[in-house]
Amino acid sequence: MSGLEEKTIRSRTIFDGKLIRVQLDEVELPDGRTSTREIVRHPGAVAVLAFTGEEKLILVRQYRNPLEKTTLEIPAGKLEPGEDPKACAFRELEEETGYRAEEMHPIVSFYTSPGFADEKVHLFEARGLTKGEMRPDTDEFVEVEELTLEEAYGKMKEGLICDAKTVAAVYIWHNRVLGGR
Amino acid sequence: MSGLEEKTIRSRTIFDGKLIRVQLDEVELPDGRTSTREIVRHPGAVAVLAFTGEEKLILVRQYRNPLEKTTLEIPAGKLEPGEDPKACAFRELEEETGYRAEEMHPIVSFYTSPGFADEKVHLFEARGLTKGEMRPDTDEFVEVEELTLEEAYGKMKEGLICDAKTVAAVYIWHNRVLGGR
Repeated sequence: MSGLEEKTIRSRTIFDGKLIRVQLDEVELPDGRTSTREIVRHPGAVAVLAFTGEEKLILVRQYRNPLEKTTLEIPAGKLEPGEDPKACAFRELEEETGYRAEEMHPIVSFYTSPGFADEKVHLFEARGLTKGEMRPDTDEFVEVEELTLEEAYGKMKEGLICDAKTVAAVYIWHNRVLGGR
Repeated sequence: MSGLEEKTIRSRTIFDGKLIRVQLDEVELPDGRTSTREIVRHPGAVAVLAFTGEEKLILVRQYRNPLEKTTLEIPAGKLEPGEDPKACAFRELEEETGYRAEEMHPIVSFYTSPGFADEKVHLFEARGLTKGEMRPDTDEFVEVEELTLEEAYGKMKEGLICDAKTVAAVYIWHNRVLGGR
């Protein structure tokens, strides 16, 4: 396996923003030659699979500047420094949707773009929901939407559900409906 | 829906690399206040769900510098300027695994990190495979591995299958095995 590894020779920070840090690294390849790697450092995030009493998936509609369009995504948000992912999942679900959960169960974690970024999303399933008040961040504008599985596939086809974590969440949901894991 | 939209006031390129371009934008929020957005521009990518004659999923083992570890991912690669995603899928599958496909069917496309990046992954299913020669890029070091569904879930649990597109692919595969879509 060591025959695939790269060694970082030099690392330079290009940009240090409020959300991401961008690095340009010089690496030694397994065959001894050198190359560069452009790397985006991100604090990581959580995302939450949460259902209403009618078995509808809870999503948030929001404008995504990098895509220049409005999307429907499962509730999610970035980790604060040192924050426990599970605590973050409880917090983000309530802030974005107003739903308070009793329990938060980890499903799976994944890196979103391993070719250039270290962002890791921790996906949870919320249980025991009660409806409270939305409290989004001051620069966050969101609307809550609730969909059946069939409707969710429709929104995927339309391109409104169009991000990796939500697409994965819909397939995970379908799996469970079908009796899978 | 327009009540959620942001307006870009100013856009500044911070870094223009060989893979990504980083922008710092000033935006007007729906309530009239201003904020900044850190945006990573990426050319987009393809990923391929491909199975051997024994119904095993074809994966590539590779070192991912941003994660500082070796991962198992479905064959994938970035789009060349102006390249058709389907053509790219045929090319990447063959370059990384040596398998040549007769047909390439679109499954779903998704943005990997809509909060800070515009990278879109086009996921295809390859059909009619024949084994040829691997021809990875000169700075790409990969090994091919073939897994059953049960083994794939095991590698997910171990954290070797740990990226969004491959995790989604495993659940999509399981869905099909269960008779879903």
